[in-house]
Amino acid sequence: MFMHNKRLQYTVRVGETNPALASLLLEQFGGADGELAAAMRYFTQGLAEDDPGRKDLLLDIATEELSHLEVIGSIVAMLNKGIKAQLSEAALAEADLYRSLNAGGDSHTQALLFGGGPALTNSSGVPWTAAYVDSRGEPTCDLRSNIAAESRAKIIYERLIAITDDPGIKEALGFLMTREIAHQKSFEKALYAITDNFPSGKLLGIGPFADMYVNTSQGDGDMSGPWNAGEQWERVDDLEEVMPADDGDGTASVKLTRNEATAAKKASERLASDPMTDAETGADLGAGPGAGKTTGGEDYGTAADVTKADRTKDKAA
Amino acid sequence: MFMHNKRLQYTVRVGETNPALASLLLEQFGGADGELAAAMRYFTQGLAEDDPGRKDLLLDIATEELSHLEVIGSIVAMLNKGIKAQLSEAALAEADLYRSLNAGGDSHTQALLFGGGPALTNSSGVPWTAAYVDSRGEPTCDLRSNIAAESRAKIIYERLIAITDDPGIKEALGFLMTREIAHQKSFEKALYAITDNFPSGKLLGIGPFADMYVNTSQGDGDMSGPWNAGEQWERVDDLEEVMPADDGDGTASVKLTRNEATAAKKASERLASDPMTDAETGADLGAGPGAGKTTGGEDYGTAADVTKADRTKDKAA
Amino acid sequence: MFMHNKRLQYTVRVGETNPALASLLLEQFGGADGELAAAMRYFTQGLAEDDPGRKDLLLDIATEELSHLEVIGSIVAMLNKGIKAQLSEAALAEADLYRSLNAGGDSHTQALLFGGGPALTNSSGVPWTAAYVDSRGEPTCDLRSNIAAESRAKIIYERLIAITDDPGIKEALGFLMTREIAHQKSFEKALYAITDNFPSGKLLGIGPFADMYVNTSQGDGDMSGPWNAGEQWERVDDLEEVMPADDGDGTASVKLTRNEATAAKKASERLASDPMTDAETGADLGAGPGAGKTTGGEDYGTAADVTKADRTKDKAA
Amino acid sequence: MFMHNKRLQYTVRVGETNPALASLLLEQFGGADGELAAAMRYFTQGLAEDDPGRKDLLLDIATEELSHLEVIGSIVAMLNKGIKAQLSEAALAEADLYRSLNAGGDSHTQALLFGGGPALTNSSGVPWTAAYVDSRGEPTCDLRSNIAAESRAKIIYERLIAITDDPGIKEALGFLMTREIAHQKSFEKALYAITDNFPSGKLLGIGPFADMYVNTSQGDGDMSGPWNAGEQWERVDDLEEVMPADDGDGTASVKLTRNEATAAKKASERLASDPMTDAETGADLGAGPGAGKTTGGEDYGTAADVTKADRTKDKAA
Amino acid sequence: MFMHNKRLQYTVRVGETNPALASLLLEQFGGADGELAAAMRYFTQGLAEDDPGRKDLLLDIATEELSHLEVIGSIVAMLNKGIKAQLSEAALAEADLYRSLNAGGDSHTQALLFGGGPALTNSSGVPWTAAYVDSRGEPTCDLRSNIAAESRAKIIYERLIAITDDPGIKEALGFLMTREIAHQKSFEKALYAITDNFPSGKLLGIGPFADMYVNTSQGDGDMSGPWNAGEQWERVDDLEEVMPADDGDGTASVKLTRNEATAAKKASERLASDPMTDAETGADLGAGPGAGKTTGGEDYGTAADVTKADRTKDKAA
Amino acid sequence: MFMHNKRLQYTVRVGETNPALASLLLEQFGGADGELAAAMRYFTQGLAEDDPGRKDLLLDIATEELSHLEVIGSIVAMLNKGIKAQLSEAALAEADLYRSLNAGGDSHTQALLFGGGPALTNSSGVPWTAAYVDSRGEPTCDLRSNIAAESRAKIIYERLIAITDDPGIKEALGFLMTREIAHQKSFEKALYAITDNFPSGKLLGIGPFADMYVNTSQGDGDMSGPWNAGEQWERVDDLEEVMPADDGDGTASVKLTRNEATAAKKASERLASDPMTDAETGADLGAGPGAGKTTGGEDYGTAADVTKADRTKDKAA
Repeated sequence: MFMHNKRLQYTVRVGETNPALASLLLEQFGGADGELAAAMRYFTQGLAEDDPGRKDLLLDIATEELSHLEVIGSIVAMLNKGIKAQLSEAALAEADLYRSLNAGGDSHTQALLFGGGPALTNSSGVPWTAAYVDSRGEPTCDLRSNIAAESRAKIIYERLIAITDDPGIKEALGFLMTREIAHQKSFEKALYAITDNFPSGKLLGIGPFADMYVNTSQGDGDMSGPWNAGEQWERVDDLEEVMPADDGDGTASVKLTRNEATAAKKASERLASDPMTDAETGADLGAGPGAGKTTGGEDYGTAADVTKADRTKDKAA
Repeated sequence: MFMHNKRLQYTVRVGETNPALASLLLEQFGGADGELAAAMRYFTQGLAEDDPGRKDLLLDIATEELSHLEVIGSIVAMLNKGIKAQLSEAALAEADLYRSLNAGGDSHTQALLFGGGPALTNSSGVPWTAAYVDSRGEPTCDLRSNIAAESRAKIIYERLIAITDDPGIKEALGFLMTREIAHQKSFEKALYAITDNFPSGKLLGIGPFADMYVNTSQGDGDMSGPWNAGEQWERVDDLEEVMPADDGDGTASVKLTRNEATAAKKASERLASDPMTDAETGADLGAGPGAGKTTGGEDYGTAADVTKADRTKDKAA
Repeated sequence: MFMHNKRLQYTVRVGETNPALASLLLEQFGGADGELAAAMRYFTQGLAEDDPGRKDLLLDIATEELSHLEVIGSIVAMLNKGIKAQLSEAALAEADLYRSLNAGGDSHTQALLFGGGPALTNSSGVPWTAAYVDSRGEPTCDLRSNIAAESRAKIIYERLIAITDDPGIKEALGFLMTREIAHQKSFEKALYAITDNFPSGKLLGIGPFADMYVNTSQGDGDMSGPWNAGEQWERVDDLEEVMPADDGDGTASVKLTRNEATAAKKASERLASDPMTDAETGADLGAGPGAGKTTGGEDYGTAADVTKADRTKDKAA
Repeated sequence: MFMHNKRLQYTVRVGETNPALASLLLEQFGGADGELAAAMRYFTQGLAEDDPGRKDLLLDIATEELSHLEVIGSIVAMLNKGIKAQLSEAALAEADLYRSLNAGGDSHTQALLFGGGPALTNSSGVPWTAAYVDSRGEPTCDLRSNIAAESRAKIIYERLIAITDDPGIKEALGFLMTREIAHQKSFEKALYAITDNFPSGKLLGIGPFADMYVNTSQGDGDMSGPWNAGEQWERVDDLEEVMPADDGDGTASVKLTRNEATAAKKASERLASDPMTDAETGADLGAGPGAGKTTGGEDYGTAADVTKADRTKDKAA
Repeated sequence: MFMHNKRLQYTVRVGETNPALASLLLEQFGGADGELAAAMRYFTQGLAEDDPGRKDLLLDIATEELSHLEVIGSIVAMLNKGIKAQLSEAALAEADLYRSLNAGGDSHTQALLFGGGPALTNSSGVPWTAAYVDSRGEPTCDLRSNIAAESRAKIIYERLIAITDDPGIKEALGFLMTREIAHQKSFEKALYAITDNFPSGKLLGIGPFADMYVNTSQGDGDMSGPWNAGEQWERVDDLEEVMPADDGDGTASVKLTRNEATAAKKASERLASDPMTDAETGADLGAGPGAGKTTGGEDYGTAADVTKADRTKDKAA
Repeated sequence: MFMHNKRLQYTVRVGETNPALASLLLEQFGGADGELAAAMRYFTQGLAEDDPGRKDLLLDIATEELSHLEVIGSIVAMLNKGIKAQLSEAALAEADLYRSLNAGGDSHTQALLFGGGPALTNSSGVPWTAAYVDSRGEPTCDLRSNIAAESRAKIIYERLIAITDDPGIKEALGFLMTREIAHQKSFEKALYAITDNFPSGKLLGIGPFADMYVNTSQGDGDMSGPWNAGEQWERVDDLEEVMPADDGDGTASVKLTRNEATAAKKASERLASDPMTDAETGADLGAGPGAGKTTGGEDYGTAADVTKADRTKDKAA
C-alpha cells in the first residue's frame, strides 16, 4: 500500500516562470525515459516477482520514482504558473497571450489543452504510452532493461541540465540524475546476484550459430574489433555461406490440405499478372500533354523551377 | 545501400497451416521485441554514429535483422496460406470460415484486415510503433539498450519454441534465437571497448546522492542484498531524512511577475473551495429512494446479488 | 514524497490460476478506466492545484488509487502464476502450452510478451495511453471529469464481478468498486464547494445560443423531454433558421494578400476539374470482360455466390 | 441517415491567414475535447441506446457536433489558405516558405504533411484517437461523461477566445462555446430524468467501505472539507487500519496445481538471487579510472562543469 | 536475405547544420508517407505474394526504399551533427543551447530525446506507426494503395524541395522524388497486368446500387460532373428514396432469446428516462448567483470581456 | 451543416445476437478501412477544396459514409443487444457470462469496456486513429488515395460477407460493399477530370532517374514484366552503377562551424571504441559454469529439451 507526505523528496525553487522550458522538462515527466515509465517498469515487475530480494528492490525503486515524478511535475507546475493564471483570467491582451503560447517547445498545447498542469506527454506533446515499458517477466532480461533505462534517463537529465541556467532547477535535476546512477548500480548488483544470467532463459544456443558474425554490411568502412574478431568469433564475409545458414534451399514452403491447395490455385489464376502485355495504365491516361518529359539533374539541384508550368510554356513556344 | 537475394537466411519448412499460431508468431514480426524493432534500433543508431567500428557493427546487425524479419514473416505467410486462399475464394461455407477465424490468438484480424499477409502488429493486433525504439544517440546508453533488447528477444523466441511442435518452425526459431545471443555478445564487447562507460555521459553524480539507497517500501518482506547493503551503500530507513534530501522545506515555489501574481490571485479567489459549506451535490440529487443503503461485506464476497433491485424490493416490503 | 508498505490495501486470495480471466481484469489495471488512469488523473491535477483543500483531496485519492493498482495487479499476478512458471520452465508439452495460451481473452500476449506479469494494457492488449487522462487544469471541469471517471470505473468493476465466481476475487473487486463510489462522493462535494461552478470558466454564454435546442435528428422517434422542452429551451425544428445561426450567408471566407491570391488562383487553374469531359478512367481500363455487370439484390442477400467466376462462366456460355 | 447542406451553422469570416493560429485551433478539430470526439461520443452512445428520449437527444447533439466540426474546420482551412497555395505553387523563395512553416504551433506539419487542409490532429500534431471516446454503454455513466466533456470543451474554447483577436473567428468561437453550455444543460436534464442515477449500475456498495475516507497523503497541508469531514465520512488517519482493509494479512496468494507448483519451484530456484554475494558487475567493469568519484552538490547547483573531463584532468595532475 | 554496402544510393552533401530543417525532413524518414512506410508496405506485401512477377517487383522496390531511408536519414544526421556534439559536450552556454533547441519544428525533442540521431517520428515528433501501412493481401487493392502512396510521397518531397535552399539537399531530395515517380509507374503497370482488376475481389456489385449517386450534400454549390452525371449514373436528389434504399422501414431489429428479452426489458425499465419530470440538476446547483445570465452576441464578437467577474460586479452595483 | 433522419439508409434485420461476429464487423466501424475513416477522409478533403465540383463530390460521399457508419454500427448494436442486457442485469450465472465473453474475436473487451455499444475500434480492439486518414491537400494524390481506400473497403466487406450466414446482415453488407464500388467510380472520374494528373504536383522528375528500374532483389525468382522491361525502362542489374546514382562517392558530409567541429572532436575522442582491446564484459561475468556451451542444431530442431538444466546436469556428471 502506498502512502504520501506532502513534502517533496527535493525542494523545488524556480527562479521565474518559463512555459517553453516546462514543455522541454516534460520529457522526464511523460516521456519515454521519464519517471512514470521508470516507476511503472519496476512496479509491474515487482508485482509478479517471486524472489523476495528482487521484489523488495523493485518496489523500493518504483516508489522512489513516483517521488521523482512528483519533483519533476512540481518544477513543471511552477514554470507554468504564470501562463496558467494569465490564460485562466485572460489577464493579457489576446496578442500577448498568443505570443506566450508560441515561445518554444510544445508549450502551446500544454497551455491550451492542459491549462498549464503537468501533462503526461513528452516534449513533443506525444501522450505517454505503456509501449515504453518493456517488462517481460524474466529477471535477467528485466534487470538488463532496467540498467539500460537508468542509463538513458541519466543522459536525458544531463541534456536538460545543459540547457537550463536556473540554479534551483539545475540543482534539482542534478539530484534526480544522480539517483538514476545509484539505481543503475543497484540493478547491476541484482543482475549479478543471479549466478547464471547469460544467456537469459533456459535454452542454450545452437552450436554453429552462437559464435558466427555475419558481415552483412560491406564496402569502405568495414572494420574489425572485439565484437567480430578474435577467438570466439567465426566471421562470415562471403554471404553466400549463410544464404541460407542451414542446408536447405532458402525458400519458404508449407503443406496445404486439398481444399487449401485448390483455393490457392484458383486465387493464383484469378489474380495472375501477365508479364507479356504492356497495357495502358491510369498513369498513362493521366499524364498531360508533355507526358514523359523530365528535367536535367544539374539545373534541378540548385533551383526547383523546372515545373509543369514551364513544360506547358515550352509546348506553347 | 541495401541489396536483397531471394534466398532466405534460413530455410522455412512449415508442416501445416495454422493461422492462430501465425498470429502468435507476429510478436517477433511486428511486436515490441520483434525483428523490425531490432533492425530499426540499430539502423537509426548506425546512421548517426561517428565511431567507425561501432557504425560498421550497427549496420551489420541491422541488416541481418532485416533478414530475420524476412524469415519470421515467411513463416507467418506459410501458416496463413490456407486461410488467405480460402477467404479470397470463399472456398468454405460461411460458418466454416467464421470458425477458422476464431481459432485463437488475434488471427481473425490478420485474416479479415490483412488478408493473411504478415502484418506489422504484435500478437494482440497492436500496430508496431517507433515508441519501441529507444535509441538515444549516446553509445553507452544505446549499447546497454541493445544488450537488453537482445536478451528480451531471446526470451520471446524461447517462449515461442516452447509452444510450437512443428519441427520446421522450431528449427528456424532456434536459429533466430541463437543469433540474438550472438548479437548480445557483440554489443557487450562494443560497450566495453569504450574505456569509461559508466556512468553514461559526461557529468559525474553528486556526492551525497550517488551511494544512497532509499528504503521506500517497508514492512514484512524488507530484504538486504548487494544492491542495498555493503560498503558502497548508505541505506536510508528513516524516510524523514530524505523528505527532502536537501536542506530546504520540501515545497515547490516560483517567483512570479506582478501581472502573473495578480492573475494567480484572481484565479485562486474565483475558484476557491469553501471547506465550511456542505452543499447538496449532483450525487445527492441522483441517489434514488434507498440512498446511502449499502450491503454487508460478507454476503457480498460470495454473491453479487444484493443490488438496487433488492433495495427497491425491500422498500416495497 | 511517496512511501510504500508491503501489505496490500486488501488481501488477495485467489482460488485457482486462470490467465484468461487475468487478461479480462487488466481492464482495471491498464485500461481506460483502470487504476493507473485514475491515479494519474488525480496526481497531475493535484500537482498544479493551488487550492489547499482540493490539492489535499487529489493527492489523497491519487495515492489510494496507486494502492488499488497494486491490488488489482496482484490478482492478475496470482491468476498468471501457473502459466508464468510453466512457460518459463517449458513444464508442459508444446501442444498443451499452446492450448493454454488460447484459452480466452488476450491471454496469449500476456504470456508470450509479458511473461505473465501484469501488463499496462487493457483487456484487448492495447497499451495504456495518457490520452485517457483528461485533466485540463480547471477545477470545475476536472472535478466533473473525475466524477464521470469514478462512475465509469464503478461500472467496469460491476461487470467484472458479474463474470467472476472466485469468491476471493469477487470480494476484492467489491472492495475496489465500493471505493469508487466513495471517491465519486468526495469529488461531488469538492465541486459544489466552489460556489459558482457552472458554466465552467469565466466567460458567459452568448444570449441567443445558450437556450437553443437544435432538433437536428428528425423523423420517426422525435421525442421531447426536460432536455429540449420546457421554459428554458427554445427548440429549433426548422433547420433553415440555424443555417446559419447568425445573419451571414453561411459561407467561409478569408482575406488573402496579393501574393496569396495569385498563388491560389494559379493552383486553382492548374488543378481545375473539367465537369464537361467524361474521360476514360483507370477503373474503365481495369474492368474485365464483363465490365459493368452486376447481380440482383435478392439472390445476393442469401448467398454470396454470384461472383466474377460466374460472370466468366456466363460469358463462356 | 445523414444529410448535408453547404451552408455552415455559423458564418466564418476570417480577417487574414495565419497558419500558426490554425494549428492551435486544431485542438477543437482533432483534439481530445474537439468536435469529432464530441460527435463520436454521442453517436456511438445513440446507436446502442434503447430509451427513445435519450436516443433522440444523443443523435440530435451528435449531428450538431458534426456541424461544429465543419465550422471549426472551415476556419482552419481559411487560415491556411495562403500557405496552402504558396507551398503548392512554390510562390515564395525557399527561405521565406521555410520561415512561414516555423511561425508557431505545429503549423510546419500541417503544411508539409496535410497541405494546409484541416487535419484530425490536436495542436501538437497528435492524431485523433478513439481512446478519447469514453462511451461505456451505461447511461448514468455516459451522461456524466458527456457533462464533463462539454465542460472541458467549453474551457478550451474560452482559452482559444483569449488568444484570438480576429473578430470573425472570435465570434464563431463564441457561438461554438455557447452551444457547449447548452449541450451540458441538456445532458444534465437527461441524467436527472433517470430517477435513481447514483451510484451507477445495479450493485450497492459494501457497507464499511462506502463512507470511508483514507487520508493517504499526510503532513503539512492536510485539510478537511465536505469531501472528507462531516457526518457521512469515516476518516482514517492511521493507515495501519486499512493495511489491509479486510481482516486478512494483506498478502496475495493463489492455489497452484501440482504441475504449476513444481514449475514455479524450479523457476524460483533457477532464478534465485543470492543476497550474500557482492559480485563484480558490468558497471564496475565500465567505470573508468576515476570510478566512484563524485562532485559536491553546492558547486553543481550553479554550474554543470564538474565532469568526467575534469576527473581525467585531476588524475593527470 | 538482405545485404548492405556502405556507399549511399545518392551522395549527401549538406552545406551547414540546421536541426530545425532536420526535424522537417523527418516527415520522409518516420512520417506517414516516409521511406520506412514505403519499404514496409512493399515488403509485407511481397512476403505473402504468390505471383512471381509481383513478388519480385515488390521486393525490388521495398529494398530500394530501405536505401532511400538511409539517404534521408543521413541528411538528417548531417543537419543534426552540430547540435548533437554541442549538447553532448555542453559546448555552449546553457542559454545558447536552449535557444538552439527552440529554433523551429520539433527539433527540441530530436535533440533532447534522440540526441540528434534520426528518429522514426514525423515532423511533429509523432512516432511511426504500422497503422500507416495499408497492405491488405489482395493485389488489386494493394497496387492501388501503392500507386496512391507513391503519389503522396512525391508531393511531400516536392514540398520539402520548396522550402530548402541548400543545393546538396535539394539535389538529393530531387533524386528521391523522381524515384517515387518511377515506382508509381511500375505499380501502375503491375495493376494493369492483372486483366480484370476492377472491382477488386470476386464479388460483383448489386445491380440497383452500383450506379446510384446519392446527392447527400445539397444547397448552394451543388454541381454536376462526370462523377455523378451521364449515362452510367442514376442520381438521387430526393433523399427519401434512399431512406432506406431497400423496401424495409429503415429501422434496426434483432431477434432475442427469452433470457435476453427479459434482461433487456429489466434494463430498459431500470434506466428509463422520465420525459415528464423536469428535475433539478447538478448544473442548476452549480450555477452561481447570476445563473442564466448571458451576454449579447455583438459585443462578444469583438471582446471577450463580459465574464463572470463582470456579472458579480453587476450584482454588487 | 448536417441533418439526420432516424431512418437508416438500409434496413437492418439481424437473425440472432452474436457478440463475436459483432466484434469482427467492427473492422468496418472503427477499423482502418471502415466507414469513419472513409467519412473523415473525404470530409477533411472537402473542407479545404476550392474546386466546386470536387468539393461537392467530397461532401456528398463523406455524408453518405456517415450514414454507412450508422448502418454498420446498428448491426453491431443488434448483435450485442443480448450480452449488453445480460451483463447489465447479471442475468446469467457468472460462469455463463464469462463464457459468453470468450466466444471469439475481441468481444470480451466490447462487452466489458463498451457495454455492448459499437466501439470505434477495429476487430482486435485497437482504437481508431486519424493516422488512417491520408488526406494530403493535393487532389491528384487525394483522389488516388480515395480510389485505393474504396477498393480496400470493398474487399473487407467481401471478406465479411464470406464469413456471415445471417441473410439480413449479408444483404446489408452487400449494399454497403456495392456503394464502395460506386464511390470508387466517382473518384476515378474526378481524377481524370483533371487534365494533367500525373505525376502529382508541379515538379517534373529528373531525367536520368525517372525511367530507371533498380533490380535490387536478385537471385532465383528474378522476373521481368511491363513494370521493369520494355522501352520506357532502363533496368539496372549491376548495382554498383547506382551506388551512388550520382557522380559522388556515396558518403554523407556536412560543413561544421569551428565550435561544432571542436565539440564533435571531443565527443568522438571521449566515446571512441578501442578495437584492439578484448575486454571482459557483463555477459562474460554473467555466463554460468557452462559458459559458452551450446547444443547441436539437429537435436534442437525436434525438441527444446537441451537447456541449462541439462548443462548443469552434464557438469555434475
